[in-house]
Amino acid sequence: MEIEKPYLLFLGDAPDQLAAKTALGIVDWRRDWCVGQLRFEGCKADTGLPDLGIEEARARGAKTLIIGVANAGGVLPDHWTATIVAAIAAGMDVASGLHVRLGSIPEIAAAAAAHGRRLFDVRHSAERFATGKGTKRPGKRLLTVGTDCSVGKKYTALALERAMTARGYAADFRATGQTGVFISGRGVSVDAVVADFISGAAEWLTPANDPHHWDIVEGQGSLFHPSFAGVTLGLLHGAQPDAFVVCHEPTRTHMRGVAHPLPSIREVIDLTVACGRLTNPDIGCVGIAINTERLDEDAARRVIAETAQAEGLPATDPVRFGVEAIVDRLAAEFGPP
Amino acid sequence: MEIEKPYLLFLGDAPDQLAAKTALGIVDWRRDWCVGQLRFEGCKADTGLPDLGIEEARARGAKTLIIGVANAGGVLPDHWTATIVAAIAAGMDVASGLHVRLGSIPEIAAAAAAHGRRLFDVRHSAERFATGKGTKRPGKRLLTVGTDCSVGKKYTALALERAMTARGYAADFRATGQTGVFISGRGVSVDAVVADFISGAAEWLTPANDPHHWDIVEGQGSLFHPSFAGVTLGLLHGAQPDAFVVCHEPTRTHMRGVAHPLPSIREVIDLTVACGRLTNPDIGCVGIAINTERLDEDAARRVIAETAQAEGLPATDPVRFGVEAIVDRLAAEFGPP
Repeated sequence: MEIEKPYLLFLGDAPDQLAAKTALGIVDWRRDWCVGQLRFEGCKADTGLPDLGIEEARARGAKTLIIGVANAGGVLPDHWTATIVAAIAAGMDVASGLHVRLGSIPEIAAAAAAHGRRLFDVRHSAERFATGKGTKRPGKRLLTVGTDCSVGKKYTALALERAMTARGYAADFRATGQTGVFISGRGVSVDAVVADFISGAAEWLTPANDPHHWDIVEGQGSLFHPSFAGVTLGLLHGAQPDAFVVCHEPTRTHMRGVAHPLPSIREVIDLTVACGRLTNPDIGCVGIAINTERLDEDAARRVIAETAQAEGLPATDPVRFGVEAIVDRLAAEFGPP
Repeated sequence: MEIEKPYLLFLGDAPDQLAAKTALGIVDWRRDWCVGQLRFEGCKADTGLPDLGIEEARARGAKTLIIGVANAGGVLPDHWTATIVAAIAAGMDVASGLHVRLGSIPEIAAAAAAHGRRLFDVRHSAERFATGKGTKRPGKRLLTVGTDCSVGKKYTALALERAMTARGYAADFRATGQTGVFISGRGVSVDAVVADFISGAAEWLTPANDPHHWDIVEGQGSLFHPSFAGVTLGLLHGAQPDAFVVCHEPTRTHMRGVAHPLPSIREVIDLTVACGRLTNPDIGCVGIAINTERLDEDAARRVIAETAQAEGLPATDPVRFGVEAIVDRLAAEFGPP
């Protein structure tokens, strides 16, 4: 299942930029896959792309309408249906990151059947996974892990893919969440698979490859997050990474959504190695990505330098300072492209 | 959702005893909940219960027909449908551990609707779970963990419930797999929930309780099993056990279904404590349950004595020698009932 490009981004009547986070993420990383945005009257989000109607977007080559907007409860408001049906009738596939399945809405299901178009519900993989086997596969893999949720694991993985590709590495971002799936055109929301198949889904996502090829796998959750650690562990076992990068947000006072304190970076490194060894005995940490969004530049440079010193590893903020330091470490440890 | 007792156990045309493992497990632990078994001509399994037809079973009070038999692919053979429909028409609920949902078979769905009976698919919880919160709840909890799958975690938990209840403890077995759900009349197959909700399902299963009450939670998988460790970790975090028992099969040469070697008991204790601390800082191991089925009695006694000595913990084979040694340790550590 690969979502066809280019995309028309549907923002509907998103009340603010945050509601259009998925669409904004796509534009950040795949600007050239997007022909424009489709907004209703009163929409308060803006990706900066040209506003287009269905017919205009088709004329510019749009193949898939992306429902790139979050909505309370993950439902699809009734007044969006007509636009989605019109896109299907005009010859476009539709991909949604909402919880509700597109095919569960009779008008949409009927239109897709009538016009032979595909519906992608990226939160619900249509793939049937096997249980994970844990057998070592050829190819190299890097996984981003975190001290918490929402600390920059997807961004760091995408930045590494871009920087490694620029240096001549064969590297592919492997998406494990809905925004990532839109950004890569494929992938699986691992938190939405049945629990028995977490590591199996990760094995499917990162199959055997050329020995010099790198899968850069988007991490999920944290081994120290009491809500989601099972997903994190299954993903770690299935991805069997050779290398991992710890992502961290230094100003956070507790784990997202729960009362727990954040683990230290060292605790995350140690537990990731202790658990990851099961499917890759050579697993090792190659760097630390620090999200310094809430710090001024002096404070950011200070916390990065202190962390690098304390852990004996390259540290950086991928957004502010790039990821070259981490790629240098990868090159030193695993060789040139 | 509580499955109503007593049960009529449906064995269909099970080709051997192994295919009726679920029914046999129910009879082992809840003999007095079962009025009889229903078998087709040629059935090669036998629970030892009286053979009854639908009407006879109803006359003896049967409230639920249990599909206690495994079938290749988890499907329901067409020639079983008429019997299931007849049970519903006679006023019984139906509970199934098959992969296929009872309600997906039109004749069964129609019969249930017409007669107002309930269909339980214990592999697919109808419950909507929240994500786990990791907040400490009152009440005490014990979890069985394993060096591998299928090493006696369910049996050990049931034996502990029985022995603790006999000593006057308030103790409830909490089922996390399909056979366990039939045995307790409630529970959740945690390996079948959506990955995001593993720890949330475990929290739902073991809610706040009287401070002296013990939930004895059936473990799943192993933190060292590359297929299922995510389930194991989510269950550990959600159950937040005060105490755990490591279950082990000493003759096994590799992990079930994969090529990996078994971890040592010590490795399982250490990683369970390292991870379990997240939601219960006081977690500790209170014993080791060794499945000595494949050893003669001398060898069994020897491996148990050696293990107890090496780990400084009570060790036993729950089937052969009971679990009193472990309950003694619990009493010493957590006090009398």
